[in-house]
Amino acid sequence: MGGGRISDQERSDAYMLGSLIAKQGWMLLNGGRDAGVMAASAKGAQEAGGLTIGILPDNSAHTASAHIQIPIVTGMGNARNCINVLSSDAVVACPGGMGTLSEIALALKCQKPTLLLHYKFDPQFEKYHIKGLLSYVRSPREAIEQIQAIFSNV
Amino acid sequence: MGGGRISDQERSDAYMLGSLIAKQGWMLLNGGRDAGVMAASAKGAQEAGGLTIGILPDNSAHTASAHIQIPIVTGMGNARNCINVLSSDAVVACPGGMGTLSEIALALKCQKPTLLLHYKFDPQFEKYHIKGLLSYVRSPREAIEQIQAIFSNV
Amino acid sequence: MGGGRISDQERSDAYMLGSLIAKQGWMLLNGGRDAGVMAASAKGAQEAGGLTIGILPDNSAHTASAHIQIPIVTGMGNARNCINVLSSDAVVACPGGMGTLSEIALALKCQKPTLLLHYKFDPQFEKYHIKGLLSYVRSPREAIEQIQAIFSNV
Amino acid sequence: MGGGRISDQERSDAYMLGSLIAKQGWMLLNGGRDAGVMAASAKGAQEAGGLTIGILPDNSAHTASAHIQIPIVTGMGNARNCINVLSSDAVVACPGGMGTLSEIALALKCQKPTLLLHYKFDPQFEKYHIKGLLSYVRSPREAIEQIQAIFSNV
Repeated sequence: MGGGRISDQERSDAYMLGSLIAKQGWMLLNGGRDAGVMAASAKGAQEAGGLTIGILPDNSAHTASAHIQIPIVTGMGNARNCINVLSSDAVVACPGGMGTLSEIALALKCQKPTLLLHYKFDPQFEKYHIKGLLSYVRSPREAIEQIQAIFSNV
Repeated sequence: MGGGRISDQERSDAYMLGSLIAKQGWMLLNGGRDAGVMAASAKGAQEAGGLTIGILPDNSAHTASAHIQIPIVTGMGNARNCINVLSSDAVVACPGGMGTLSEIALALKCQKPTLLLHYKFDPQFEKYHIKGLLSYVRSPREAIEQIQAIFSNV
Repeated sequence: MGGGRISDQERSDAYMLGSLIAKQGWMLLNGGRDAGVMAASAKGAQEAGGLTIGILPDNSAHTASAHIQIPIVTGMGNARNCINVLSSDAVVACPGGMGTLSEIALALKCQKPTLLLHYKFDPQFEKYHIKGLLSYVRSPREAIEQIQAIFSNV
Repeated sequence: MGGGRISDQERSDAYMLGSLIAKQGWMLLNGGRDAGVMAASAKGAQEAGGLTIGILPDNSAHTASAHIQIPIVTGMGNARNCINVLSSDAVVACPGGMGTLSEIALALKCQKPTLLLHYKFDPQFEKYHIKGLLSYVRSPREAIEQIQAIFSNV
């Protein structure tokens, strides 16, 4: 998950994250639009041979990134953020705005392992950090390693 | 789309439909649950090497058929029927109950090509039949042929 | 529930239905838009001193009828039809198109008492008619009497 | 908006907030459940003669607070948080957990005036604070005064 308007560094991180997800043999699922973290991570995953799923807020697939292979068209606006989270085994949040924040909040509410990439420490999340549900990571590679660790314990 | 409780003939038709969809290289998308038309069509598609997507009504993927490769977890109950329809390029409705009827109605409202497999002629749909948006088909093979015809004209 | 484009007779029936609902002290809930059965029934209910609730498909209340006192803004398109049905104690369906049909189907699926005003007998609903969940009524007054009978038995 | 599990002081604030909303002649809309800020603010509003609307996550109205006069049953879980926000002219967030945080985030995304009651300053919201969309308030009364100021400028 992540913002529609992002910096070059963030775009590069999102691309790398998508690429590493695909190389693990995992599916990439995001908000599907042709913008920011969504487009960059889908491009990274698709170019690494992975499968990309986009949960679109709109009424048609026209707004999907060309790198989304499976567009799910919800017609539900921001309510699709709940579907993003419920459909994911783990959520990696890249920098973004209020849409991304709503997804972090919903992910924690739904007890999904949540990784914040390049986020400052936030006292609101302290409780979930202590429980081990939320982690702060400093690179796409660290995000992947943390997810591996989480699911190797399952 | 189709019912959760179905006859052996309907199960066999749904399996064949899924199989033929996969052999066309198309993706199968349905309501995802481990029952009736959903489970049989997913089995048919997966065993023919296709990709299967299930849009689940529940809060977790536990209710998904084992033949669904991509479970989308909506947590939205019947409201997910809208997503089924909006995410499909064409809708094939197999016999079912009120859930299936709601999907036929929503598909026609959203201007999706809709094929009714083993349905009696229904005067409510006459207008859409005349416009060519709705067809009655008598076999999975005829459904596939009609969909090919629709999209070869696009 | 009912269509956005209706005849004068249907508008008059919807107005009367809204008026009678309000006179019973019941709340009127519908799809909220400024069209057809929604606008006419809301006008009837409001002018008879009743409370009117509209569950809107859009992202803002701008599309609501002026006779809707409580606009609920869903931003979910046709998925709001599920909310219409779940939030109602009984559903009266006036003539309409595929949106209305989807609401009838969802109402029956959710086990809501459903009354069809000026509908032809339809074999698809036979099972629910026999169970007493669905009735055919010929006037707004008959709809009200049936609902009274249903809830006097509860 | 606000949490399901709250302190006595928070309950008292939520009750007072509901009461003051009703005394302004405004409608109170919240998440409707019989818990925490939802139940206390509905009680306050109803006992002051106001109208109370609850947007419920569940499939039936059984989970609603007895002080909710208009239960809207969504069957959509947390996706109903979007409806809470879209249906409100202004959002007052009382202390809560991740559900409340998701509502604050969605409210700001949807450009709704948002008031945080007894929240610490949070740098994530700085941008919206500067724009005047988000305010920090220290009492229910201050929340009401701020909302009056916002809408007197409209």
